[in-house]
Amino acid sequence: MKKNEQKLTHISELGEFGLIDHLTKHITIQNLSTIKGVGDDAAVFQYENDRLSLISCDMLIEGVHFNPTYTPLKHLGYKAAIVNFSDIYAMNGTPHQIVVGLAISAKYTLEAIEELYSGIILACKQYGVDFVGGDTTSTPSGMQISVTIVGSANKEDVVYRNGAKENDLICVSGNLGAAYAGLLILQREEQTFLANPQHQPDIQAFEYVLERQLKPEAGKKIIETLKEKGVKPTSMIDISDGLASELLHICKQSAKGCKIFEDKIPIDLQTYDVAEEFSIVPLTFALNGGEDYELLFTVDIEQYEVVKNIPGITIIGHITSEDIGKYIISEQGQAIEIKAQGWDALKKRNDTIR
Amino acid sequence: MKKNEQKLTHISELGEFGLIDHLTKHITIQNLSTIKGVGDDAAVFQYENDRLSLISCDMLIEGVHFNPTYTPLKHLGYKAAIVNFSDIYAMNGTPHQIVVGLAISAKYTLEAIEELYSGIILACKQYGVDFVGGDTTSTPSGMQISVTIVGSANKEDVVYRNGAKENDLICVSGNLGAAYAGLLILQREEQTFLANPQHQPDIQAFEYVLERQLKPEAGKKIIETLKEKGVKPTSMIDISDGLASELLHICKQSAKGCKIFEDKIPIDLQTYDVAEEFSIVPLTFALNGGEDYELLFTVDIEQYEVVKNIPGITIIGHITSEDIGKYIISEQGQAIEIKAQGWDALKKRNDTIR
Repeated sequence: MKKNEQKLTHISELGEFGLIDHLTKHITIQNLSTIKGVGDDAAVFQYENDRLSLISCDMLIEGVHFNPTYTPLKHLGYKAAIVNFSDIYAMNGTPHQIVVGLAISAKYTLEAIEELYSGIILACKQYGVDFVGGDTTSTPSGMQISVTIVGSANKEDVVYRNGAKENDLICVSGNLGAAYAGLLILQREEQTFLANPQHQPDIQAFEYVLERQLKPEAGKKIIETLKEKGVKPTSMIDISDGLASELLHICKQSAKGCKIFEDKIPIDLQTYDVAEEFSIVPLTFALNGGEDYELLFTVDIEQYEVVKNIPGITIIGHITSEDIGKYIISEQGQAIEIKAQGWDALKKRNDTIR
Repeated sequence: MKKNEQKLTHISELGEFGLIDHLTKHITIQNLSTIKGVGDDAAVFQYENDRLSLISCDMLIEGVHFNPTYTPLKHLGYKAAIVNFSDIYAMNGTPHQIVVGLAISAKYTLEAIEELYSGIILACKQYGVDFVGGDTTSTPSGMQISVTIVGSANKEDVVYRNGAKENDLICVSGNLGAAYAGLLILQREEQTFLANPQHQPDIQAFEYVLERQLKPEAGKKIIETLKEKGVKPTSMIDISDGLASELLHICKQSAKGCKIFEDKIPIDLQTYDVAEEFSIVPLTFALNGGEDYELLFTVDIEQYEVVKNIPGITIIGHITSEDIGKYIISEQGQAIEIKAQGWDALKKRNDTIR
């Protein structure tokens, strides 16, 4: 688990401006919309006339959203960027510029921060986003990352959470619960390692769910495919807190009810395996696990023939009138009310890492 | 120092979404450019055709940028917004939308967070900015605030740090060093209070410098006045880290030198008083104190007659060629090289709160 011995650089040797210069010197600008990146009081950008601008921010806090014991910093940087890109795709937009606020304690070396930045920059490269600025500062303990993303969309393309109509189909991309399954495996490995530091982790069997936890991807392809097929969702949200919580957001903001079907919910085989090992119902992972960064959206029922043939999209139910309520129909045909027990970082929980 | 006993609400009783609903329900939108504020995956905005967009972010970390012992949370919220507005004015732009990332530990109650938000919202109201979104999460200890501001400017109005030309006049708004003087007073009062909890602070004599530290303002008026007078700075930066550091940024990015004059640097009388009490040269406050959020800018020498008559602006020197170096001329006529010892939160310092 230990790296080869090498000279590590303390951040204090560089100071804030030295660090920023060092970290940003290799950043290149990819977007025509970026006019001025890192290096002034503000970054400057401009979208084409009539494009709407989108902005969103997400924080990742050490000890809450990540545990540095088992989170490689490059993955962490990648994830910090991805969770923000995901919010822009959830508006049916395209992310373009990112600003990164980073607060780091003295325990982190320059090499560690470089790892983190390399992950952010890799994500930016893969998704065509420009790293245009931020703030770097010290913090008494841990690490806090705050990422803000701006993007754009054509006025007629923007999709809000409040547009779901009765009888609309409820769709999800990919599969659900895998990221939470990955988290459970990581937490177990940490406990085993703490009990026996000689323990070599056996995690090959869980490679897929671990990747979903440590290096998630955002819904770029789904958004592009829907556009190609001429499907504009009536409402959309990204699944960061678990399917249940997100579905309730759409229902609340659209003033509608919903009915989804347990046997339609896409869950990967490896997620099933983990659920079995932990004696947890796999559905719980999908409904309440969180961090999947898949897209949950509704489409007009007239689009059924188109949507059902798009690979990577699953129709899991439909929107109802509000008075019917919000239900999941179990495999046995039982209607169970949907409640949010999602990834709510402010509620008291037993988990140490949420 | 103790508040009246009252029932305080733990954040965990509300959860993240309950908290966000509670805090944002009174927010109103002031700008035509804001299309969708709080409540979706991203906020939506649009500036007029041909306007450039500006984006900047700043973090305020408990134990680094503020000490909750003597920082009222409403002031802290106000300041968190102002320091960001300041970055947009420093581009000669106008701030329009703000997103706020807030990480809070269990020690903070709902009432405390309401105070913080009320300060942010007050600043937004005063400066015509819309609070459009953010992220709220828990943190193991302390409080971390990350604010991102977006704004706009006409293409021909944007002022960068790199436009200073030889013989340009170097100007500052307001006066310098007051915020640092205020910080020293607060730190002293805290020490006195810790030594003797019966101690009643006697801070009336320092009201102005305390306000400069606790509730700074951003350069809206100066920017508007310059525009009215037809003066476009050739370069500009806001003074967050002390005059020396900011001047070096302008010189470095413009590839120029500078000469400023000690006796021209505007320092308030109360700042002098504090400097005397602490046996520190007042100039040190101005050069290295930081957090003044005044504007430092250069203008073409042909604007001399206009600029010298604008109240609240002081001409402190001029830009030279790079090879001449960067100097401050003391009252005794001695040329001293300018070095940055500004408010660099990542360098090792003796101060506990920086």
